[in-house]
Amino acid sequence: MIKVGVVGGTGYTGVELLRLLALHPQVSLTAITSRGEAGLPVADMFPSLRKRVDLRFVAPQDAALDECDVVFFATPNGIAMKQAAELVATGVRVIDLAADFRIRDVAEWQKWYGMEHAAPELVAEAVYGLPEVNREKIRSARVLANPGCYPTAVQLGFLPLIEAGVVDISHLVADAKSGVSGAGRKAEVHALFAEAADSFKAYGVPGHRHLPEIRQGLTRAAGTPVGLTFVPHLTPMIRGIHATLYGRLNGDVDLQALFEKRYAGEPFVDVLPAGSHPETRSVRASNLCRIAVHRPQGGDVVVVLSVIDNLVKGAAGQAVQNMNIMFGCEETLGLDIVPVSP
Amino acid sequence: MIKVGVVGGTGYTGVELLRLLALHPQVSLTAITSRGEAGLPVADMFPSLRKRVDLRFVAPQDAALDECDVVFFATPNGIAMKQAAELVATGVRVIDLAADFRIRDVAEWQKWYGMEHAAPELVAEAVYGLPEVNREKIRSARVLANPGCYPTAVQLGFLPLIEAGVVDISHLVADAKSGVSGAGRKAEVHALFAEAADSFKAYGVPGHRHLPEIRQGLTRAAGTPVGLTFVPHLTPMIRGIHATLYGRLNGDVDLQALFEKRYAGEPFVDVLPAGSHPETRSVRASNLCRIAVHRPQGGDVVVVLSVIDNLVKGAAGQAVQNMNIMFGCEETLGLDIVPVSP
Amino acid sequence: MIKVGVVGGTGYTGVELLRLLALHPQVSLTAITSRGEAGLPVADMFPSLRKRVDLRFVAPQDAALDECDVVFFATPNGIAMKQAAELVATGVRVIDLAADFRIRDVAEWQKWYGMEHAAPELVAEAVYGLPEVNREKIRSARVLANPGCYPTAVQLGFLPLIEAGVVDISHLVADAKSGVSGAGRKAEVHALFAEAADSFKAYGVPGHRHLPEIRQGLTRAAGTPVGLTFVPHLTPMIRGIHATLYGRLNGDVDLQALFEKRYAGEPFVDVLPAGSHPETRSVRASNLCRIAVHRPQGGDVVVVLSVIDNLVKGAAGQAVQNMNIMFGCEETLGLDIVPVSP
Amino acid sequence: MIKVGVVGGTGYTGVELLRLLALHPQVSLTAITSRGEAGLPVADMFPSLRKRVDLRFVAPQDAALDECDVVFFATPNGIAMKQAAELVATGVRVIDLAADFRIRDVAEWQKWYGMEHAAPELVAEAVYGLPEVNREKIRSARVLANPGCYPTAVQLGFLPLIEAGVVDISHLVADAKSGVSGAGRKAEVHALFAEAADSFKAYGVPGHRHLPEIRQGLTRAAGTPVGLTFVPHLTPMIRGIHATLYGRLNGDVDLQALFEKRYAGEPFVDVLPAGSHPETRSVRASNLCRIAVHRPQGGDVVVVLSVIDNLVKGAAGQAVQNMNIMFGCEETLGLDIVPVSP
Repeated sequence: MIKVGVVGGTGYTGVELLRLLALHPQVSLTAITSRGEAGLPVADMFPSLRKRVDLRFVAPQDAALDECDVVFFATPNGIAMKQAAELVATGVRVIDLAADFRIRDVAEWQKWYGMEHAAPELVAEAVYGLPEVNREKIRSARVLANPGCYPTAVQLGFLPLIEAGVVDISHLVADAKSGVSGAGRKAEVHALFAEAADSFKAYGVPGHRHLPEIRQGLTRAAGTPVGLTFVPHLTPMIRGIHATLYGRLNGDVDLQALFEKRYAGEPFVDVLPAGSHPETRSVRASNLCRIAVHRPQGGDVVVVLSVIDNLVKGAAGQAVQNMNIMFGCEETLGLDIVPVSP
Repeated sequence: MIKVGVVGGTGYTGVELLRLLALHPQVSLTAITSRGEAGLPVADMFPSLRKRVDLRFVAPQDAALDECDVVFFATPNGIAMKQAAELVATGVRVIDLAADFRIRDVAEWQKWYGMEHAAPELVAEAVYGLPEVNREKIRSARVLANPGCYPTAVQLGFLPLIEAGVVDISHLVADAKSGVSGAGRKAEVHALFAEAADSFKAYGVPGHRHLPEIRQGLTRAAGTPVGLTFVPHLTPMIRGIHATLYGRLNGDVDLQALFEKRYAGEPFVDVLPAGSHPETRSVRASNLCRIAVHRPQGGDVVVVLSVIDNLVKGAAGQAVQNMNIMFGCEETLGLDIVPVSP
Repeated sequence: MIKVGVVGGTGYTGVELLRLLALHPQVSLTAITSRGEAGLPVADMFPSLRKRVDLRFVAPQDAALDECDVVFFATPNGIAMKQAAELVATGVRVIDLAADFRIRDVAEWQKWYGMEHAAPELVAEAVYGLPEVNREKIRSARVLANPGCYPTAVQLGFLPLIEAGVVDISHLVADAKSGVSGAGRKAEVHALFAEAADSFKAYGVPGHRHLPEIRQGLTRAAGTPVGLTFVPHLTPMIRGIHATLYGRLNGDVDLQALFEKRYAGEPFVDVLPAGSHPETRSVRASNLCRIAVHRPQGGDVVVVLSVIDNLVKGAAGQAVQNMNIMFGCEETLGLDIVPVSP
Repeated sequence: MIKVGVVGGTGYTGVELLRLLALHPQVSLTAITSRGEAGLPVADMFPSLRKRVDLRFVAPQDAALDECDVVFFATPNGIAMKQAAELVATGVRVIDLAADFRIRDVAEWQKWYGMEHAAPELVAEAVYGLPEVNREKIRSARVLANPGCYPTAVQLGFLPLIEAGVVDISHLVADAKSGVSGAGRKAEVHALFAEAADSFKAYGVPGHRHLPEIRQGLTRAAGTPVGLTFVPHLTPMIRGIHATLYGRLNGDVDLQALFEKRYAGEPFVDVLPAGSHPETRSVRASNLCRIAVHRPQGGDVVVVLSVIDNLVKGAAGQAVQNMNIMFGCEETLGLDIVPVSP
């Protein structure tokens, strides 16, 4: 059994992680911390976990996290970077679901996240946890940077094109749409039901924190800097990301075969038949990414449609997938979920 | 392994049944019929089932249903009653998710459902599949009438009060709210998104088909006819039923203790702590019924709040629960689901 | 022209009031106050008002409210009671959209609202602004208590029955469902999209502040205290209240004729044909209350369905209707809106 | 008074047209036809129109449409083209809200719409009713082709860039998102609430009928054929279109000034301040198009955000605007609506 601690269990990423861990046959959940809710039974805050998670939140200082095999940080940005070094030193592996270890260029990270990095030496060591790219490195990672939700959907959609060198990387466009749970479980007016329901908007057009993360991943794949326009949108649904990706093709290529070959054997990436339009609900509550690739009217533009559940493949599910890899479990363990549809 | 056939797999009850059966460790899914979609891979219609259900729909006449151990009918009303007798005669057990075998009074059934009953003799034999009431009879049932969605939520909420004789049974009120999936996957204007979203309405106030079913169940529990006003409402959500039940108390009683005792040991009924207000999302995608009981301002009126997922405990999940009982499996097998929330 | 001030213009009641006042041909909008947003153009906070409302929020102390003819308080409870006396003394009429002047029994008010009342003498003078009951008194009101949203829908539904004495007033049930905008534009977790969407729940079953207000209105109509069970529910829609009302009939009565006669000539109450089920969207954005009355299966229980838009007839629209009456305008002026559907 | 007939009043475009016409001070509504609903009071089908529209649907052959000044066709594609010639011959002006007269290249139209055109001679005469482009021609139009919903949002967003020649027209991208009412009031499974709610998907990526219409408009503005990739998406909201437009800039330009100048004086186009992100709800129920223009990180890509209400500026409202122009009314008459938000 893997002894697991969760730091920061009161957000959507946290409760989703607990949903998945509660049914994972190799996990022993030992501590869930919360600064504000210490003492409260977890299931009192999240009734969906009644009779599944019997723990109470504990104050961070009272949790024996150093006795865990792995600690997940489902915290705001800037927390994991302060605590990871101490844990790693005692042999505990760290999976950060926030952004602290995602950007290798510390100066760039500090610019986008507006704070000084507390553990730049760990950034260099940290492994970016996109299994479809980094599976081997993930196995031995001591600090794992779990990818962002948009970066997961966008990278999985663009990677086959970029790795094969068939697309003009100077002007990529990623038009991405997210459900409102992506905004987190914070009391903020813009995420109220009466603000976000029955309406649609873009946000962060001048610059969103996931832009440098995506750019880093695509640039790594291309071997040279990519030009990317990334526009996120808020969609009146709870879960789900739909990325619509545009690029100019360099020449003729069998796009369908390219994608199918790239993801053959991947347990959580499903390339749909030619002509498909994936719906976000077709992956709801599961760790799947479904992808369709189009070339409208046979022109020189490729359009990729990539959908994930932002809380699963875009956060907690991918974190569990990474844990499975890190601890030598079957990669799909605890993630054998049929999407909930309708 | 239980060899399972599904008749009518193209509705919401059908796809939900397939979601549950796909992960059931003791089930071998052998045939899924559809008159209109014969030949189509099931996963082409329901992409959420890709790589989970590899079967194609087969025409009813081409399905070797008589080789199954059990056949689920996820069909409109009036289908199962025509085919059940033949299956039962060959030793196949039948679970009808429609209403054909729910009402013991055939004349009453014919009045509400507007057709002649094709198998009145099976009605007498059929077992009403509410495990919390009929578990023993379910074990040996050859024809099982799976309860309706509203009847499940309303009966589980009222039963403790009626069985204990603490409520005036002459004037019960059940104000019930359902998600739109309860209307089925039929192309009808009233269930369009642009009709049902961001709006709320009652329907069927003059009389709804679930009224006689609920009345039958409560009357059985009371030992004498009950007076019930039942008003269903359409709610702009996909899944979920919330029943708000009202009754006048006959005297003083510890309501919380009464409910907790009644459902002690029940794997799928969760009596919440006093003062609770269950949300439908707290049972989403699971087979649970969560119940809270209130006595506002200490008066003589009891208010029970009862929530289920209409497609699970209100349909496919309860059908699988019944199958587990009928075939001697652990009752929770394949239903060990943590609700999906948010 | 009526010179109008609005105190507290940053909530949903406030922005809806501004939507209505912006098109009112007899209104000159002179000041909109906000403690927190002073200096900000109103249309920067509410882009829907761009080019319609050119004012900026002003700090309360800087607004020349005493030069207005009428001041609307779209504030939290407890604000209007502190400022009304001074305004009234200078001849300014006050319309409070909060609850400060709704309950005539000050002790009762203090119990439910958890604060001491700052102007009990004005409570005695204040007129309860339900035009269908109090039209004459409203004309000359100096302080007008605009009714709550639930109380409007519930009272309009029950009044014909109670005034005619045809219903058992000892055990009335009001099962009411509200859109999430009823919770206000406050940053609170329970009203987040990802909390409230695709789910349904009751709340406040042990006691809700609108209970004493409804009870007061029904008791006044009955001439003797009524027994009422009131259960509000949160519905995943932005606007709308649907009240489902239950009562036991004392004898035979033509319910349809009773309701039609009671509301003949009322510009904003629409009694639907027998057998109808009003949808909340059929009144969306309008000041209408639509009502249907049923007697299921010809029994002794009456079911009334009453729908309003909680922000219009349940708040800002009714306030404008009251202003029209107070200032001798045609009652429908500025409220001549066709509901927005779909 | 303008005598108005409406052919095909049972869809969403129809009911929205009736909402607007009901309050138009210069309109006398004389006939609303429906093949299937002849004899039914319009308000029985659309309760939101009770006491506003007193007409009954009449069979097309029984409507004295030739006595009207103008007839709106709110019909499926292929109807207006069969009836327009006869009406025009008798001096009745025709406004077609469907696509029959939008594409000047009849062969192209026939390819995309899959039928033979019944009145190619009228296509040549018809005026494309985008007032921001064609105001003068609209005044005297006998046959007016009311633009499609996507084409309105996309063209208004791209036009300033193309007319000014500041964007590379060979590779424009229009990523557009529509509410579900855009699918019409047809009983089809894909538009059911339980299919479309809480999910998001692209559709028509290989080719959508609005593509040639948009391309025609942009090509006219450019004076040379444009290259356009157009991807529409279905969004879980009732009304609204959000178009996110991407283009590569040819050089340096003050985008904000360009847009503000282009739309100065336009009553229904609102260019938002630099840095804005318009929400669809900010135009809900109104005839407005709100636009924001961005240049992320000061690069060479321009991003335009353009929102409309698909049923108003994208259909019925623009049709009324066109009628106002055609009949010499003030352009905003009957369209003086403050958006409904929240």
